[in-house]
Amino acid sequence: MESQSEAQRLAGTVADSAPGTAARCCFLLHVRIDRLDDYVDAHEHVWPEMQRALSDAGWRNYSLFLQEQTGMVVGYFEADDVELAQQAIAKTETNANWQRAMSQFFAAPDGGTSEVVPQYFHLA
Amino acid sequence: MESQSEAQRLAGTVADSAPGTAARCCFLLHVRIDRLDDYVDAHEHVWPEMQRALSDAGWRNYSLFLQEQTGMVVGYFEADDVELAQQAIAKTETNANWQRAMSQFFAAPDGGTSEVVPQYFHLA
Repeated sequence: MESQSEAQRLAGTVADSAPGTAARCCFLLHVRIDRLDDYVDAHEHVWPEMQRALSDAGWRNYSLFLQEQTGMVVGYFEADDVELAQQAIAKTETNANWQRAMSQFFAAPDGGTSEVVPQYFHLA
Repeated sequence: MESQSEAQRLAGTVADSAPGTAARCCFLLHVRIDRLDDYVDAHEHVWPEMQRALSDAGWRNYSLFLQEQTGMVVGYFEADDVELAQQAIAKTETNANWQRAMSQFFAAPDGGTSEVVPQYFHLA
């Protein structure tokens, strides 16, 4: 498919241009406009055990940004291996509990499902 | 305005939760769908003088990501002072030349104008 080959080309571009650096991941989520305040409030009090679970899974320098007009969330994190870090957090009970608590805030039908955005440039 | 106060609240949230850490900036751009390939190609050969100008302006750990279905670009960078870093690069002739070369790829009318997305969470 066209989109797959382009995504692979983008990934290859960055892999070629930044050897030996940490991998970086950008992903999108979509929050209900009428629940933005409560969603942001929840992130002022992220459970300490959720923060530990992310660190234990290898997530580093993890930021979340919110485009309030649309409810679009941009996530950014770094890890030695981004896919392994995503798999590691997904296996934890803490993450399952956190996602259950957050699910009320996400736009139907799949606003809570991360869409990964391929990288094409990096400057250290 | 509601949107201003929310943006200020988001900025305050992260300022409170991550004292002493580098500032981080997320911004959006919009590329013409029919020019994605040429746009990505240009970023495989970013001028060395443009990379130096960014570094000299204080831009660090700068990544660009592309959602190919929509042409939306997500930019992420770190700086001691994000606003100063943006002002510093905007003042350079190299940046003016680069933006002029890139302007053909951006969606009309303002796809090449950065929209900053406020941060609300950070985990070191």
